[in-house]
Amino acid sequence: MIIVFSKGRIKSISTKDEGFKRNAIGVFDSGVGGLTVFREILKALPNEDCFYLGDTARLPYGTKSKETVTTFAVKNTEFLVSLGIKFLVVACNTAASAGLETIEEKFDIPTIGVVLPGAEKAVKVTKNGKVGVIGTRSTIMSGAYKAEIANIDPDVQVFQQPCPLFVPLAEEGWTENEVAHLVAEEYLAEFSAHGVDTLILGCTHYPLLKKAIQQAVGYDVQLIDSALPIAWEVKKRLEKMGIEREENERKYKFFVTDDPENFVRVGEPFLGHNIDDVEHVDIVV
Amino acid sequence: MIIVFSKGRIKSISTKDEGFKRNAIGVFDSGVGGLTVFREILKALPNEDCFYLGDTARLPYGTKSKETVTTFAVKNTEFLVSLGIKFLVVACNTAASAGLETIEEKFDIPTIGVVLPGAEKAVKVTKNGKVGVIGTRSTIMSGAYKAEIANIDPDVQVFQQPCPLFVPLAEEGWTENEVAHLVAEEYLAEFSAHGVDTLILGCTHYPLLKKAIQQAVGYDVQLIDSALPIAWEVKKRLEKMGIEREENERKYKFFVTDDPENFVRVGEPFLGHNIDDVEHVDIVV
Repeated sequence: MIIVFSKGRIKSISTKDEGFKRNAIGVFDSGVGGLTVFREILKALPNEDCFYLGDTARLPYGTKSKETVTTFAVKNTEFLVSLGIKFLVVACNTAASAGLETIEEKFDIPTIGVVLPGAEKAVKVTKNGKVGVIGTRSTIMSGAYKAEIANIDPDVQVFQQPCPLFVPLAEEGWTENEVAHLVAEEYLAEFSAHGVDTLILGCTHYPLLKKAIQQAVGYDVQLIDSALPIAWEVKKRLEKMGIEREENERKYKFFVTDDPENFVRVGEPFLGHNIDDVEHVDIVV
Repeated sequence: MIIVFSKGRIKSISTKDEGFKRNAIGVFDSGVGGLTVFREILKALPNEDCFYLGDTARLPYGTKSKETVTTFAVKNTEFLVSLGIKFLVVACNTAASAGLETIEEKFDIPTIGVVLPGAEKAVKVTKNGKVGVIGTRSTIMSGAYKAEIANIDPDVQVFQQPCPLFVPLAEEGWTENEVAHLVAEEYLAEFSAHGVDTLILGCTHYPLLKKAIQQAVGYDVQLIDSALPIAWEVKKRLEKMGIEREENERKYKFFVTDDPENFVRVGEPFLGHNIDDVEHVDIVV
């Protein structure tokens, strides 16, 4: 039995048998964006088996309601749990903002979402206590980052801006052209007026647009990408629970709810290398 | 009993009772785009009751595979048929390109998709026999417009271009700003090199970007918006089948699979007036 502390609540996780430790880490996202997180997890935890689920049939989540996104998040978790996982990473800001609590209530599996590590890092990094957050409309409307930051340090001021066009731009591969720069300027002009010194990239697609974003907000602003902080947080928690693997010829695998072909084409720039083993799963209707 | 000619096949539709004629016209789209079609249907057929279903929980369709889009299209049709409709309009180019045949096979309801009327109109309009088609990636990949045009007149040359960013631009309301013009120029530059004199707006979102598109392709190019041709085709077919209504205090209603609020906000510019009666339906998982 493992005791897990989750949002202040204590959960006991049955290890089932010795095999629990050998279970994989499960990661899901609405599509390819979470691959930026998956990449860091693969690097930070080289002995862990990992599964990635991209809910490509129902993406994007960022334009949809909390209820709908939560329904999708629960479905995704059910699937990953059915494969036998020991730890769940919600690698989608929208899903983490909308559905993390419901997932933690419904499933007895230690879980982390991308919001908390990004918020923690931003609070650590800011010097003037003014933090900007950009994300999908749904993430921004949820106020999840604002709430986490207020929890950590209520004196930090938070300025938010939804940037709905960044996701399609990243998926189109238009990350450094004139359009990307113009869109970034349109969305981000206000931040320098507010004087933020730290900007959270509150969507896993946004690191692909880093250059355009950095230029638009100015080079003095520190950009916070949650991928690395969350990977290290997963590592820390596995160690704390004593369920990290010491030696293992690591395997990892991708699952998608729509056709694998498009996922591979759009996803490889996010993962940073080839995507080989992708399986279509039918969990949508 | 009504005999329906559909894609050369003869179907007999049971009128059930005298009530069949009083059934509504059912229209579906992945989201708000089909409202440009719905608007023309409401105008052309002022005595008909109409239902509109926007599958907002699973939108967009344009980035997804034929199989997934067909599954969604069948689900949507099942729902509209369950309300009792006499005629189905697939007001989404992607769904019509991917799933029209399957719908016609599975359901005994006269059906029309947006592709055919647009293709017919373009062939009528072109003087030099060079027609451009723009649409979502999925619509363009399907080759549906190309096939329909070849069917009508094999001498017409067709040039295609997917424009994935037009949908998020239209939904963001960025239809006439610098970004819209720049994106339109990026996508449409090739068409003037090909010398097309007619351009099919093969996605129901695109009429909102008409100005930017027209400027990018030049004012000599005729833009074809399927909304009006399909509305008139529906009218013609109802008359032919003798199931049009002569007098009726017409009612219409909207259904969405995600939250109604966002649908109303984004949809009103597409419909051109207020959206009042919207109901959430749970047909997604």
